[in-house]
Amino acid sequence: MENIRTVTIVGAGLIGGSFALALRRAGFPGRILGVGSERTLARALELGVIDAGVSLEEGAARGDLLYLAHPISRILDQLPEVARHIRPGTLTTDAGSTKRTIVETAERHFPPGAFLGGHPMAGKESRGVESADAALFEGRTYIVTPARTEDMEQPLVREFTVWLEKIGARLLVMSPEQHDKVVSLTSHLAQMASTALGKVVLDNMYSTNADYSTAGPGLLDMTRLAMSSYEVWKDIIATNHDSIVNALDAYIDLLQKLRDTLGSRETATVFEDGARLARLIRSR
Amino acid sequence: MENIRTVTIVGAGLIGGSFALALRRAGFPGRILGVGSERTLARALELGVIDAGVSLEEGAARGDLLYLAHPISRILDQLPEVARHIRPGTLTTDAGSTKRTIVETAERHFPPGAFLGGHPMAGKESRGVESADAALFEGRTYIVTPARTEDMEQPLVREFTVWLEKIGARLLVMSPEQHDKVVSLTSHLAQMASTALGKVVLDNMYSTNADYSTAGPGLLDMTRLAMSSYEVWKDIIATNHDSIVNALDAYIDLLQKLRDTLGSRETATVFEDGARLARLIRSR
Repeated sequence: MENIRTVTIVGAGLIGGSFALALRRAGFPGRILGVGSERTLARALELGVIDAGVSLEEGAARGDLLYLAHPISRILDQLPEVARHIRPGTLTTDAGSTKRTIVETAERHFPPGAFLGGHPMAGKESRGVESADAALFEGRTYIVTPARTEDMEQPLVREFTVWLEKIGARLLVMSPEQHDKVVSLTSHLAQMASTALGKVVLDNMYSTNADYSTAGPGLLDMTRLAMSSYEVWKDIIATNHDSIVNALDAYIDLLQKLRDTLGSRETATVFEDGARLARLIRSR
Repeated sequence: MENIRTVTIVGAGLIGGSFALALRRAGFPGRILGVGSERTLARALELGVIDAGVSLEEGAARGDLLYLAHPISRILDQLPEVARHIRPGTLTTDAGSTKRTIVETAERHFPPGAFLGGHPMAGKESRGVESADAALFEGRTYIVTPARTEDMEQPLVREFTVWLEKIGARLLVMSPEQHDKVVSLTSHLAQMASTALGKVVLDNMYSTNADYSTAGPGLLDMTRLAMSSYEVWKDIIATNHDSIVNALDAYIDLLQKLRDTLGSRETATVFEDGARLARLIRSR
């Protein structure tokens, strides 16, 4: 249980920095190295998030556990280089929001069992290492997506998942494909619904000549996600396009039925089922 | 400026009770009567929301200002009876969430200028007189929908709108038709989008075999409205059906375009415009 002595955080921002702080708080006794821009590394050192800043090559060569916390497209670019420099018997994991493309790419470059995809269902509106928080993963689901089920039996994978539990996360194991399909429903569709709602209200408000002060608290709730940066979503769409299209098709289909039968007994059922899901995800 | 000496609140729940408390706090010196169920009136008296509980007939006969705060279908039922018992030179107003049907019905029963439709853009998740709050209208838009523009010049209407300003509301004047069209976009469509999202996630989660713990904060935000009671929405749909259908058509159309061009340059524009609306409604 002591194979992980040096952890390298590649991208010491909100997620990577929080993972480092959470490890420390949970009693991790080893060294934590950081890879990132000069500015980020300086701040991370100042804030006590990492012990030293290193290059990607050095971080990959020295880490027993490598934690890739950049956005998806950056992770995809880094995987071949990381794989070239790691020592045998180490584990590389990531925190990207989609998993199929990342795991497939990693499988082409890493030895079997040396890479484990991950996705912490945690975040904040603010970004950067300044927002890093040792409690970020507490009580939150942390999905890991092994390429093969048996990867979960690897000693380093077991050690990593024990640390996930120590930092308060709730572990959930899925295949990369299942992960991407599930989050297209529980996360990506919500983003599309919010963005499209904001756009349609914007386009139609001009024609009704109305004041934005008619927006009630419901529309505020429903457009919070619409403020998300497209930079992040561009990568998610690029790597989970088909599942998001399928989720949008199901949503459009249901909205069309709701529209066609609006006010009938079917509408009552849609409201009941919608409320049921809302309560289910709040009761866990 | 002292024509309103007795106010009758018909339906002393969250909205009616809050209006009474807000009037008192703003220095209203007259009497406040309440009409409602025995239980509600007992609680309203206990909480100091009203001075006395009366029948609808007595409340209509004694009030200088009648404030109808029940749900829409109840208001529609009460309008003829209220109109039969009011004294000449009084004003009746309501707080229903749609306005065209209510104002049209009132026009058939009340003398010209004796009724003014209203819609406070304020609410709370909890209901009932126990949740009544003197600050509920503070800083919130309060739409009034005169049947004719010149109704706004009536002395009692002017006195009522001065009280609205005194309780901290931001007055907005619209025709009943414009109101219903605007709120179909800024309120009703958001409800439909949330309800449909909840339903589609519920229906498809079974097929992905997934755990509800994969729901992130985004889905929680996006399904808060889905917990709304259909009782309330049934009335809104019944009295604003066509505008809601039009809003749904525009939303479905946009989602279809977003789906068909997902990941292209058009997607970036949809994200930018969605974010723009989200910021606009937060900056007022």
